[in-house]
Amino acid sequence: MSEGEPIKCLAAVAYEAGKPLTLEEIIVEPPKAHEVRIQIKYTAVCHTDAYTLSGVDPEGAFPSVLGHEGAGIVESVGKDVTNVKVGDHVIALYTAECKVCKFCKSGKTNLCGSVRATQGKGVMPDGTSRFKNLKGEALLHFMGCSTFSQYTVVADVSVVAIDPSAPLESVCLLGCGVTTGYGAATKTANVQKGETVAVFGGGTVGLSAIQGAKARGASKIILIDTNDEKKQFGEEFGCTDFINPKKDLAPGQTIVEKLVEMTDGGLDYTFDCTGNTKVMRDALEACHKGWGESIIIGVAAAGAEISTRPFQLVTGRVWKGSAFGGIKGRSEMGQLIKAYQDGTLKVDEFITHKRPFTEINKAFDDLHAGSCLRTVLDLSK
Amino acid sequence: MSEGEPIKCLAAVAYEAGKPLTLEEIIVEPPKAHEVRIQIKYTAVCHTDAYTLSGVDPEGAFPSVLGHEGAGIVESVGKDVTNVKVGDHVIALYTAECKVCKFCKSGKTNLCGSVRATQGKGVMPDGTSRFKNLKGEALLHFMGCSTFSQYTVVADVSVVAIDPSAPLESVCLLGCGVTTGYGAATKTANVQKGETVAVFGGGTVGLSAIQGAKARGASKIILIDTNDEKKQFGEEFGCTDFINPKKDLAPGQTIVEKLVEMTDGGLDYTFDCTGNTKVMRDALEACHKGWGESIIIGVAAAGAEISTRPFQLVTGRVWKGSAFGGIKGRSEMGQLIKAYQDGTLKVDEFITHKRPFTEINKAFDDLHAGSCLRTVLDLSK
Ligand SMILES: NC(=O)c1ccc[n+]([C@@H]2O[C@H](COP(=O)([O-])OP(=O)(O)OC[C@H]3O[C@@H](n4cnc5c(N)ncnc54)[C@H](O)[C@@H]3O)[C@@H](O)[C@H]2O)c1
Ligand SMILES: NC(=O)c1ccc[n+]([C@@H]2O[C@H](COP(=O)([O-])OP(=O)(O)OC[C@H]3O[C@@H](n4cnc5c(N)ncnc54)[C@H](O)[C@@H]3O)[C@@H](O)[C@H]2O)c1
Ligand SMILES: [Zn+2]
Ligand SMILES: [Zn+2]
Ligand SMILES: [Zn+2]
Ligand SMILES: [Zn+2]
Repeated sequence: MSEGEPIKCLAAVAYEAGKPLTLEEIIVEPPKAHEVRIQIKYTAVCHTDAYTLSGVDPEGAFPSVLGHEGAGIVESVGKDVTNVKVGDHVIALYTAECKVCKFCKSGKTNLCGSVRATQGKGVMPDGTSRFKNLKGEALLHFMGCSTFSQYTVVADVSVVAIDPSAPLESVCLLGCGVTTGYGAATKTANVQKGETVAVFGGGTVGLSAIQGAKARGASKIILIDTNDEKKQFGEEFGCTDFINPKKDLAPGQTIVEKLVEMTDGGLDYTFDCTGNTKVMRDALEACHKGWGESIIIGVAAAGAEISTRPFQLVTGRVWKGSAFGGIKGRSEMGQLIKAYQDGTLKVDEFITHKRPFTEINKAFDDLHAGSCLRTVLDLSK
Repeated sequence: MSEGEPIKCLAAVAYEAGKPLTLEEIIVEPPKAHEVRIQIKYTAVCHTDAYTLSGVDPEGAFPSVLGHEGAGIVESVGKDVTNVKVGDHVIALYTAECKVCKFCKSGKTNLCGSVRATQGKGVMPDGTSRFKNLKGEALLHFMGCSTFSQYTVVADVSVVAIDPSAPLESVCLLGCGVTTGYGAATKTANVQKGETVAVFGGGTVGLSAIQGAKARGASKIILIDTNDEKKQFGEEFGCTDFINPKKDLAPGQTIVEKLVEMTDGGLDYTFDCTGNTKVMRDALEACHKGWGESIIIGVAAAGAEISTRPFQLVTGRVWKGSAFGGIKGRSEMGQLIKAYQDGTLKVDEFITHKRPFTEINKAFDDLHAGSCLRTVLDLSK
C-alpha cells in the first residue's frame, strides 16, 4: 500500500533542450488536497512534447517530466478529491475543467482558468512539484499531466474517470490528438450534413478532423498533405479527395485556386493541422466568401505570425482556432469513449507503432517518419 | 414625362484621381429591363467615395459618377421590374439582394452575388453604362449606386422602397454608414445584454456600432479614438467610457493592456471602425480569451495586411468582418426605417453638415474635419 507515501518509479526525464530523455528512477510525492496520483499505464508521444523537448518552445522549462497523452489508474487521492477514487480508470487532461471558474461557467469555451497559471510554470496549484530525482532535485510538471512517468500527480480538475472496459492502450489517444481533431470538426466548427471541408495536414489531428467531418455527413472532405503516404490514411478516415500541393497543382496554380475551383467558390470549413502559418493563410483564403470558417489547430513556431488582407474577413470569412477540440474533458470525455466503443470513433487505427516505455526516445524519432501517426508506449515494460 | 427618354441633369463627375469632382450636366439613359431610374433627392459623402476619388483604390476607375449613400424617388422603371414602382421613395443599395443566388439563399450572408462582377467594373448588368457627358463620353457607375447625380440608374436588386413618411434627407444615411455600424453590432456580432464592447474609431460607423451595442443592453461600451472631440459624440450615442490612446495610457502601457485591465480579461466584442490594420490587431488582441470576437468594418489601405500570432485564435478569439453590417438591404431596411421612426435608432444626429449639391467638393473637405460625421447634400440645389 503506497497511499500517502512517496513512490519510487521509472520516468523519462527531460534534462536539457535538444537532448534525449533520461530514463531513471524518480520519486513521486503523494497527492496533496485536490490532487490525484495516477499510475500511468500507456502514453503516446505528441508533437507538443517534441516541440518542448527541442527547445524552440520559449515557455519550455527543464528539468521536467513531459508527456500529456496518457491514461492510467488512480493510485491514491488527496484530501477533498471527489471526482475520482482509487482504482478508477482515468485520462489525464491538459485542458482542465473546474466547472466553477468564469471560463467554465461561460458556456462558451473549454479553456478553464483554474490551474492555468501554475500549469504554465510546471508546478502544482500550490506552486511546488511532486517530482524529484534521486539526487533530490525537483523536476517540473508539464501541461498539468507529465505522463512520461509510471506515476504522476495531477490536479483533480485535470483528470476524468472513464468506463473501465475501455482499453487504456487505445483511449490514451483521447488525451490529445484524436479529441483535438474530432472536436474541432464536431464542436468548434460544428460541421453540418452536406457541408464541404478541407483539412490541411493528415497527421492524427487532421485525420481526426476528417473523421469528425465524415461523422457529420460532410459532402466533400479534401485532405491536403505534402506527403503522399497520407492519401491512404486520409481515405481510411473518410476524405473524398486528396491533394499533394507539391505535385497536384497546374503550373502557376495556387492551392487556394485549386480548392476554390473544386468547390464552386470555396470551402464551408477549413482546418489547419500543420502548424505552418503560410498554410493557415491558405486555409483561410480557401474558405467560401460570405460564410466559410477556418479553424487553426496547429501550433506555430515561436514568434510566427499569421497574415491576410482584412478584405478576406470583411467579405465574410471567419478565422478561429481550437484547443483540445473545444472539448470539456470532464463533461464530455464519456461521450467520446462511448463513440469509440460503439465503433463510430476510430482510435485504434492511429496506433501505427507500439513500444515499451524504455524505447521512448525512439518514439520521438518515430514522429518524423511519414508513416507514423502515433506511437503508444507501455509503461509496464 | 421623362419616362423612356434620356434625362439631362446635374451630376458631379469624377474625371481623374486626386482632382475635384466636375459639376456638369450629363445624360442619364432610361432604365433597361430589371433597372430603375431614381431621382436622387439627398446623398451623403462617405469615406469610400473619398478613397476612390483619391486614386489609392486600385479598383477605382474614371471617369465615373461616385456616391453610394443616397435616397430618392423612382422616376421610371424598366421592363420586368416588380419590386418598386414610379413614385416610390427608395434607398440605393450598394449591397444588392436578389433573393435567388447561392449567397442570398444561404441564409448566412448579405453578400449577394447577382450583380457583383459588373458592379465592380462600373457598369450595369448588361455590361454598359447609362451615363454619358455632353461630349457623348460614357461615364462609369460606382458601387451600383452613383448617387452624385440628380438622376441615376440602378439594378432592381440594388434598390429598396421605404415608408414615404420617412424623411429622405435623414434616411439616406441608412444607405451606408449608420446601417454598417448598427448592423455590425446587432447582426454580425449579435451583442447580448450585459456583454462588453469596445469600438475603435468614433466616426459614423463606430458611433452606430455604439448605438447598436447600447440598444442590445451592453454593460460596458468603450470608445477608443485618437481625437478627443469624439468623446462627446460617443457619449451621446451611448458609450460608457472613452479612451484616447495618445493621451490616456500609463507610460509603457498598450491600449490592449488598458482594455484587458478595464474589463477583467478582455472584451466580448470589439469593432474596428478606423481601417487601420494596426488597430485591427489591437482590437483582436483586446478580446477576451475563450470567446471574444473582433469584427473588422474599416476598409484598409490597398495592400495592407492584418497579422497576429495564431495562439490568439487557438485560445478562443474569433476574427471576422462585416460588410454593410450584415444587413440584407431589401429584406431588412424596413426594420431600420421603423427603428428610426420609433426613435430607437438615431440618424439625424449624424448630420453635422448640410450643403447644396453644388458644394459637393466642400463636402469632401468636411470629411477631414474631426467635428464632421456626415455632410448631407441636397440635390435640388
Ligand atoms: N490546438 C490544439 O489543441 C492541438 C493539440 C494537439 C496538437 N496540435 C498541433 O496540431 C498539429 C498537427 O498535429 P499532428 O499530431 O497531427 O502532427 P503530424 O506531424 O503527425 O501531422 C502533420 C501533417 O501535416 C503535413 N504537412 C506539413 N507541412 C505541410 C504543408 N505545408 N502542407 C500540407 N501538409 C503539410 C505533414 O506531412 C503531416 O502529415 C501540430 O502543429 C500540433 O502541435 C494542436
Ligand atoms: N465594411 C463596410 O461595409 C463599411 C461601410 C462603410 C464604411 N466603412 C469603413 O469604416 C471606416 C469608418 O468609417 P467612418 O465613416 O466612421 O469614418 P470616420 O473617418 O468618420 O471615422 C474614423 C474615426 O477613427 C478615428 N481614428 C483614426 N485612426 C485611429 C486610431 N489609430 N485609433 C483610434 N481611432 C482612430 C478617427 O479619429 C475617426 O473618428 C472607414 O474605414 C470606412 O471606409 C466600411
Ligand atoms: Zn498533444
Ligand atoms: Zn474552470
Ligand atoms: Zn460608405
Ligand atoms: Zn443574391
